[in-house]
Amino acid sequence: MTALGIDIGGSSVKVGLVDRSGNIVERHSGTTPDSLPAFKATLGSLLAQFDGQLTAVDGIGFGCRGIIHHESTLVERLPGAAHFLEGSRLSDLVSDATPAGIVVRADNDARAALAGELAFGAARDCSNALMLTLGTGVGGAVLAEGRILRGARGVAGHLGHLTMEPDGPLCVCGNRGCLETYFSARAMEAEVGAGLHRGVATSLEGILKRSSPLCCEDIFNAAAEGDTLAIVVRDRAVHFLGAALAGLVHAFDPERVILGGQIIRAGAAIIEPLRQELRWRTMCLLGEEVPIVPAGVADQSGIVGAAALVFRP
Amino acid sequence: MTALGIDIGGSSVKVGLVDRSGNIVERHSGTTPDSLPAFKATLGSLLAQFDGQLTAVDGIGFGCRGIIHHESTLVERLPGAAHFLEGSRLSDLVSDATPAGIVVRADNDARAALAGELAFGAARDCSNALMLTLGTGVGGAVLAEGRILRGARGVAGHLGHLTMEPDGPLCVCGNRGCLETYFSARAMEAEVGAGLHRGVATSLEGILKRSSPLCCEDIFNAAAEGDTLAIVVRDRAVHFLGAALAGLVHAFDPERVILGGQIIRAGAAIIEPLRQELRWRTMCLLGEEVPIVPAGVADQSGIVGAAALVFRP
Amino acid sequence: MTALGIDIGGSSVKVGLVDRSGNIVERHSGTTPDSLPAFKATLGSLLAQFDGQLTAVDGIGFGCRGIIHHESTLVERLPGAAHFLEGSRLSDLVSDATPAGIVVRADNDARAALAGELAFGAARDCSNALMLTLGTGVGGAVLAEGRILRGARGVAGHLGHLTMEPDGPLCVCGNRGCLETYFSARAMEAEVGAGLHRGVATSLEGILKRSSPLCCEDIFNAAAEGDTLAIVVRDRAVHFLGAALAGLVHAFDPERVILGGQIIRAGAAIIEPLRQELRWRTMCLLGEEVPIVPAGVADQSGIVGAAALVFRP
Amino acid sequence: MTALGIDIGGSSVKVGLVDRSGNIVERHSGTTPDSLPAFKATLGSLLAQFDGQLTAVDGIGFGCRGIIHHESTLVERLPGAAHFLEGSRLSDLVSDATPAGIVVRADNDARAALAGELAFGAARDCSNALMLTLGTGVGGAVLAEGRILRGARGVAGHLGHLTMEPDGPLCVCGNRGCLETYFSARAMEAEVGAGLHRGVATSLEGILKRSSPLCCEDIFNAAAEGDTLAIVVRDRAVHFLGAALAGLVHAFDPERVILGGQIIRAGAAIIEPLRQELRWRTMCLLGEEVPIVPAGVADQSGIVGAAALVFRP
Repeated sequence: MTALGIDIGGSSVKVGLVDRSGNIVERHSGTTPDSLPAFKATLGSLLAQFDGQLTAVDGIGFGCRGIIHHESTLVERLPGAAHFLEGSRLSDLVSDATPAGIVVRADNDARAALAGELAFGAARDCSNALMLTLGTGVGGAVLAEGRILRGARGVAGHLGHLTMEPDGPLCVCGNRGCLETYFSARAMEAEVGAGLHRGVATSLEGILKRSSPLCCEDIFNAAAEGDTLAIVVRDRAVHFLGAALAGLVHAFDPERVILGGQIIRAGAAIIEPLRQELRWRTMCLLGEEVPIVPAGVADQSGIVGAAALVFRP
Repeated sequence: MTALGIDIGGSSVKVGLVDRSGNIVERHSGTTPDSLPAFKATLGSLLAQFDGQLTAVDGIGFGCRGIIHHESTLVERLPGAAHFLEGSRLSDLVSDATPAGIVVRADNDARAALAGELAFGAARDCSNALMLTLGTGVGGAVLAEGRILRGARGVAGHLGHLTMEPDGPLCVCGNRGCLETYFSARAMEAEVGAGLHRGVATSLEGILKRSSPLCCEDIFNAAAEGDTLAIVVRDRAVHFLGAALAGLVHAFDPERVILGGQIIRAGAAIIEPLRQELRWRTMCLLGEEVPIVPAGVADQSGIVGAAALVFRP
Repeated sequence: MTALGIDIGGSSVKVGLVDRSGNIVERHSGTTPDSLPAFKATLGSLLAQFDGQLTAVDGIGFGCRGIIHHESTLVERLPGAAHFLEGSRLSDLVSDATPAGIVVRADNDARAALAGELAFGAARDCSNALMLTLGTGVGGAVLAEGRILRGARGVAGHLGHLTMEPDGPLCVCGNRGCLETYFSARAMEAEVGAGLHRGVATSLEGILKRSSPLCCEDIFNAAAEGDTLAIVVRDRAVHFLGAALAGLVHAFDPERVILGGQIIRAGAAIIEPLRQELRWRTMCLLGEEVPIVPAGVADQSGIVGAAALVFRP
Repeated sequence: MTALGIDIGGSSVKVGLVDRSGNIVERHSGTTPDSLPAFKATLGSLLAQFDGQLTAVDGIGFGCRGIIHHESTLVERLPGAAHFLEGSRLSDLVSDATPAGIVVRADNDARAALAGELAFGAARDCSNALMLTLGTGVGGAVLAEGRILRGARGVAGHLGHLTMEPDGPLCVCGNRGCLETYFSARAMEAEVGAGLHRGVATSLEGILKRSSPLCCEDIFNAAAEGDTLAIVVRDRAVHFLGAALAGLVHAFDPERVILGGQIIRAGAAIIEPLRQELRWRTMCLLGEEVPIVPAGVADQSGIVGAAALVFRP
């Protein structure tokens, strides 16, 4: 059993053949074009490189940002570079190159990542799980009673937009005080930048001045070495995420909480304090500790998750 | 099609025969006993008063506080007066008085209320809905993809225990800053009491001094008449609930938000400001306004909701 | 050198002869009357009991709540039982019983307490000091460049009404989020009461149910014995007071911070965590630790402080 | 009556002759040197340009950052470019060029600015006044009972380091949640930058991308034109400053609050909402409105304030 996973990113389109164990057997990628016809051409040429293997695949899965109807594959909203796909059915884009009647599914990248965990990773034995992808923003997806929630408008699972402070910072989504304004890589980097701008001394100044963008790992490393600004930023972010997870666990009662995204490279430095926060906040209602685990699918390309949409709804 | 609804409360046990339209055809109630044998006896005698009509019912539904397995009807946790039911299967308590093989279901009262809305009320046409019961505490239940969520341990839907402030007031559940510590009747009454204790002048002093407990309606009335303390307490509570609803709507993407419980008697005075908060906070991600509606099932006894567990899973 | 100290309280009027070492040589007291003529009569009779010793005193000092002009002794505002004194000069009330031309001074009780510390207690060698009286409310007085600040309207030193949270609880003064709403005995008691009302379990329930009013010491004792609600209430209050003191120390740069009032009976349990908060918050700007010390004048009657107004302006 | 004002800045040293009306009669300036000998040489050459007029001056005043003893003129701390002055007496630096025995005074720039207001500007008729200079940071100075407060260590008046949130952002001073982290130009600019970094759309993006530093006026202008991010940043900053001023007014009871610095160029757009906040927060305790007025001394160079140290202590 194999599936083709297609990840549509802002800078590149990646296509891979994924086997039943979640391994990428073969992969090809190209730059994300800037128009629908060019996109079709690029996709056609990427698919052609699979040399007829596509006749044997059990289905095709697309993952991308935005809101896509998972069955019809209609792209409803897709902010950013590939916005020209809005209004298209992704299945139409591959109909020439694939066998008639093949299953084609699509969903946003956080749900695709959860599908990957469900098929091959940390959610394999779960009926209820929360997934948060902690990257530049905070993505989320929810498995409840064995199904990945999509909601009435395809928006369900936007866990990064849980309100943490009614009068908090303005979020990209128009709400104020969203979890994403406290925890995401962008939020932490912005807070370090703000501290520096206000004149606070920090070992991170050098990294920022070398004009390379600061990344989250830098902050966790500086904190581990005793930088006060980094410690304050890290601890506040973890405190808010722990508090948010507690509320989500009360709302969804999952078997486990799965964390993915670049921030997770910090490993135990982030998971251990989160575990402690979650434990004391939820022990009474839950009666037991809810494990927090890193994502089990190592693939950062999004291909495996997209392919997994074929295997698991 | 009829069902028997049984509500087990801290002070009384209520049993009613509910028809297919959600009307209570006949009802009987008794004081909640203080032991398991006495409870069985009371329940037996209440059922006997239905004079054999029970042979025609399509099933029996139980609603009570705590955590009850909805299919096995095993009571896992039941804090308060009827705690002796922990470890019992509620279906066993009615097996003598009912036909063999009859369907018996049970769930906590918030989910029973949502089942009632689903069968007869404001959620009738929904696949995704949030229900919050705003009473002494804040109860919650979630309909997602057509199913009432129960979660891995039967805890799903505890929306009153969403964390709103990581370092907020200590909640009865052991967490800090839960929605329930900001919005519930108890929380608002406590805040008025605290203001008075600190010496703030308020027209609510008279009500408190008459030693009758303050109720939420008093606060809304005093606020409407310009009492500053009441206004501050009301506005803060509504502000927090609006912010919480925004996060929940982002997480669950429901067709509507249903509010029940005593606080709802305040009507538009509470729903209108909530609607405004929810609108600006979620318009961007949702693309449309999510309606906030009062519960449609008028029954305060819990009987109709309990019966509805038979009709809808 | 001796002075007469007169404390006008809500329930009693206390008069004492204070020697140069701050000892009360002789004292008499009576119930606070409810009219100006009765007040004059009571005061006259109390003074008469000093048997002519008054001819030898160096002056008379009055302390009471509210706003009193310290030189003219005109009572501008005096909320509560003795409000009928508003508009009177306190010096007129003693003119019959005392030598012509004797010095008469008056001030609010927090400033009188600071005068006492300045003459006999913890501020004896200071030119700059902050005094906070932590009782049912939070009173304050400031010594700056050797003078007790009175301000343009006699209001200076209301340190309990420093704003700690712009949208915090409504204060008796009409502001929101005043220090007094976080730290005072009333505030802490109210917060425990609110927790109880929301259903939080606490060992303080017994004390409250015995209908004896809860006092601050009870909370500190319960916290020391591990009661979670008491710990949360205590730690939050101390955290806010420490943060407030840091700001005040940056504004006034005092040689020391003097704490008086009932809360101080908790001793090191309160002073030690405050000291730590103040230290890390101010070390950089101040360059050294500002000591926090308990009031040195043991007199709880207010007599010594009132008398001290004669010795030190 | 004339005085010489000398402002020692990070980039330039400015010297001016100020007459009794606060006008600068003549001025000369040079680049701030990087060593003590060079500094002496520069100052000597600047003074020489006044052609003997210095024999007629009534005194010399120095203003600079940091902590300077106002009578001995000893520089205790001076962070930044001119740090080599630490340990020097500023009076020694001008002794060769000025008549023996001439009065030389020195103080930090916020106190110098208040001295200027006292001699020539908005504090001329005051005994009690607060001054806040709202620039890249928040400076402060206090007039109490006719004297500019200096405190036990020369630190008094650091009003920008009032704690507004115990767990707020890390401040350059080591404290957390200082007023300066909410209101200053740097703080507001940093918050806009953080919003942009998190992806929030704003009309200020163009200004930031042109790599010219954002300034406070830009934010107020964008807010006036309806930019949501600018509105949120402005309103929050004003809300915090209003709340802080309320607390300071309760602590110092000034006749007026004087605002200086670049932010004040926003005029009524900033003063009017502050006035409203201050009014409702303090009306009850103060009994009247405390006026908020812009600084009356137009001089941005710091020369007039420095000279005023001679006229008023």
